Amino acid sequence: MKEITAEIITIGDEILYGQIVDTNSQWMSGELSDAGIKTIRKTTVGDVPEDILQSFSEAEGRADIILITGGLGPTKDDLTKPLLAEYFNSPLIINEEALAEVKDFFERRGRELTALNKMQAELPEVCTKITNRMGTAPGMWFEKDGKVFVSMPGVPIEMKTIMLEEVIPKLHLVFNTPVIYHKMIKTIGIGESFLSEIIETWEDNLPENIKLAYLPSAGQVKLRLTAKGDVLSKLIEAVDQQIEKLKPLAGKYIYGYDKTYLPSAIGQLLRENGLTISTAESCTGGFLAHQITSVPGSSDYFQGSILSYADEVKRSELNVSKQSLTEHGAVSEIVAVQMAENVRKRLGTSIGLSTTGIAGPDGGSEEKPVGTVWIGYSDENGSFARKSQLTTDRLLNIQLTANIALNILRVEMLKIIALE
Amino acid sequence: MKEITAEIITIGDEILYGQIVDTNSQWMSGELSDAGIKTIRKTTVGDVPEDILQSFSEAEGRADIILITGGLGPTKDDLTKPLLAEYFNSPLIINEEALAEVKDFFERRGRELTALNKMQAELPEVCTKITNRMGTAPGMWFEKDGKVFVSMPGVPIEMKTIMLEEVIPKLHLVFNTPVIYHKMIKTIGIGESFLSEIIETWEDNLPENIKLAYLPSAGQVKLRLTAKGDVLSKLIEAVDQQIEKLKPLAGKYIYGYDKTYLPSAIGQLLRENGLTISTAESCTGGFLAHQITSVPGSSDYFQGSILSYADEVKRSELNVSKQSLTEHGAVSEIVAVQMAENVRKRLGTSIGLSTTGIAGPDGGSEEKPVGTVWIGYSDENGSFARKSQLTTDRLLNIQLTANIALNILRVEMLKIIALE
Repeated sequence: MKEITAEIITIGDEILYGQIVDTNSQWMSGELSDAGIKTIRKTTVGDVPEDILQSFSEAEGRADIILITGGLGPTKDDLTKPLLAEYFNSPLIINEEALAEVKDFFERRGRELTALNKMQAELPEVCTKITNRMGTAPGMWFEKDGKVFVSMPGVPIEMKTIMLEEVIPKLHLVFNTPVIYHKMIKTIGIGESFLSEIIETWEDNLPENIKLAYLPSAGQVKLRLTAKGDVLSKLIEAVDQQIEKLKPLAGKYIYGYDKTYLPSAIGQLLRENGLTISTAESCTGGFLAHQITSVPGSSDYFQGSILSYADEVKRSELNVSKQSLTEHGAVSEIVAVQMAENVRKRLGTSIGLSTTGIAGPDGGSEEKPVGTVWIGYSDENGSFARKSQLTTDRLLNIQLTANIALNILRVEMLKIIALE
Repeated sequence: MKEITAEIITIGDEILYGQIVDTNSQWMSGELSDAGIKTIRKTTVGDVPEDILQSFSEAEGRADIILITGGLGPTKDDLTKPLLAEYFNSPLIINEEALAEVKDFFERRGRELTALNKMQAELPEVCTKITNRMGTAPGMWFEKDGKVFVSMPGVPIEMKTIMLEEVIPKLHLVFNTPVIYHKMIKTIGIGESFLSEIIETWEDNLPENIKLAYLPSAGQVKLRLTAKGDVLSKLIEAVDQQIEKLKPLAGKYIYGYDKTYLPSAIGQLLRENGLTISTAESCTGGFLAHQITSVPGSSDYFQGSILSYADEVKRSELNVSKQSLTEHGAVSEIVAVQMAENVRKRLGTSIGLSTTGIAGPDGGSEEKPVGTVWIGYSDENGSFARKSQLTTDRLLNIQLTANIALNILRVEMLKIIALE
C-alpha cells in the first residue's frame, strides 16, 4: 500500500524567534499518525512572503498532504491567505457562507462586525471553505494534482476543532490510509545503552511491520513500538505478543505503558495495596514529595514529609543520632537509613523513603564528590540505603535522585505485594 | 550590516510523530535572537537518511548557520553522525580527546564503557569536537564556504550547556553580528493588564530603538526591553535610563533583572540580612521548599520543612490545635497562621512560611472551592495569613501558591530590612 505523507508548515515570526513554543505541530502529527498518515517533515517560516511561497512549493514536491497553520488572523502581519490566492492563482472573493458564519459568531457574542473581520470571509475562489466553530478565520481546503493543501488558524483550540471535526474525516475520504498502532513501554532503572544490549536479540527479531525507537529522559527510557498494517486488532495482538517476549528480558524495568506517569503508577500500587508513605528529604529539598503529590488524590496514601536540610533538623525532627552525623557525616548510609526508618515511625506510615546527598554545585569533597547521594528505604520488614554517583548539575541531581528513589519504592513494593 | 541568519534542523521520528514537543528549537531561536542572529527557518525531519541529507543541503542554500539537534545517541536509530560524515565526505575516526571524555564520564559514575558508548567518540575527521559536559555524545562543528554547521545531542540539558558554553561564543567570533542589548525586568504581584495600565505613558514614550515585550508566566510578568544600535555602552545607558523612569511607577513589583530567579533573589535577601527560614506545607506538597532549595547554597538560610499532608501530621508535627481543625477546617486562616508560627518556633528560624489549600481537581466544596488557598507568614514581629482564589488546575495551583508565598516573603523581608 502506498504510504500517505504529510508536511506541516507553521507560519509566524513569534514561533521562529522563540517567543512561543509550537505545540500545534506536535499535536497535529500525533493525530495524523493515529489516522495512518506519516508526517515526513515540519517546517516553520516567518512572516516573509517569499519564504512562505517557497515552503508551499517545496512541500508540494514532497508530501501528499500539506497542512498549514498560522497567519490567518485579522491583522496586517497575517499573510497566509493572500499568498495562497497567489500560489493557486485564484482571486480572493467574498464567500457568502463564510460571511454568514463570521456575522453569526459576532452576533452570538453581542459584538459588532468590523471591516477587518468582514475581510476574513474573503477566500480564494478555488478553495473549499472549512467552518471554524471556535473563531472567525475560516479554514481553507485546496486540491491540486492529487495533493491536498489545508490552511488553518494558529490558535490551538480553533486548529484542533477544525482538524478533528473537518480535516481528518475528509482526509480519510480522499486518501486510502493504512492503519498504524503505537505502544509506548516505559522503563526505569536502566540506561539506554544497557537496555539496548539486553534486548538486542529481541529487537533484531521484531517483525518487519513493527519498528522500535528509544526515547531517553532523566533516569528513564521509553521504548516506542510502531506497527503498520490493515487491521487494528491484528496490530494490537502482534504488539502485545512482542511485549510478552520482552518481559522476560526487561520486565523488571517496565513500570507502565503509554501515558502512565511514574508517580501515578506508584500511587496506584500504594492505593491498591493499602500502603501509606512518608518521606524524609535532604538533598531533594521537597522535590520527591512534590513528585508524589503532583498526582490528584495522593492524600490517600501520602501522609507528609520531614524536610531536614540542616543537621539540627535531622537530629531534632528525625532523631538521627549525633554519633552517626559526626562519625559518618550527613551524606552516609547510616543517616539515610535512620531518616527513612524514623520518618516512617514518626508519621506512622507503612513505608519511609529518604534522600541525603550533595546536589552541588558546591559542597563536594574528594571522598564525597558532588553528585554523591544516599537513598534510604524502610518498611516493617527492614531498612536499607543505596548509594548513587550522579552528575555535577544541581537540578538534574535533584530530579535523578527523586526518580531513583521512586524506582526503589516501586521495586520494594512489588516485593511486599509478592509476599502477601 | 549584513544580517546573519540561522536554520534549525531537528532530527527524530519522535518529534515528527508528535510523541514529544520540540522545546529545544524554541529555546535555541531565543538564544540566537539574543546574540543578534535571525532564525529564518526551522525544519524537522524523521530518521530517514535521504530526508536528513536533503535538509542539510537545503539549509546550506538558505542560512549562514545550520544548527542540528538529535540523532546522536548510542543506539541504532541514531543517524546524524554517519550522515554528516557522508555530507562532508569525511571518514569517521576515533577522536582521542572525545574518547577520553566519554571514558571519564563513565568512570565518574562507576560504570563500564560499552562498545556502543565507545563508538560515540568516532567523529568525522574534518569536524571540530565540541565537549559535552552533561552527556556522552560530543557535539560537532563544521565550516564550509563561510557557513557553519553545528550538530548537538537532542537531550535538552546537554544541548543547552553546549549552546551556552561553546556554540554561542564561537559564533560571535566567526560572524560579525549587530549589537543587540536585552534587559529583562522581572515583576511579581501584579497581572499583565494592570501592569500595562500603570506603565502605559512610559511605554508610549520609549525611544524608537527600544522595544518592549510582555512575557507573562504563572504569577509573574517579565518585561523585556530590546535595544538595537552600534555601540553596546550607549544601548546599556539608554536602557538603564528607561528603567530609572519605570521605577517610580512599578518599582515595588520588580524583584530583579535578567536571569535573576525569584528564589535566588529571595535567598540573597535572606543571606544578606542574616535571616533563616522554614516552611510548613500542605497543598504545595514540597514544591515551595523545592523552589527555595533549587538555589545553590540555600542551606545557608533554609533549615527545613514540615510537610503535613495529613491532618494528623498537622497536629502531631506542627501542633495545630484540634479545635482549629474541627471548627475551621485545614484550609483556614487560623490553621495557616498556626502552621507558619509553629514551624518557625520548632525549627528555630527567623521566618516561617506556610501553605494550606485545595489544589484540586477534587476536594472542593461550595464554601471552599478548588483553588482556595491560605498562605501563612510568621516572624518575631507577628503572624498573619492571606487568602487567594486560584484556578481549577492542580499543578498550576501548586506553582501559583508557591509564587505568591515567595512574594509575601519578599515584601515582608523588605519591611524587616527597612525597620533595621
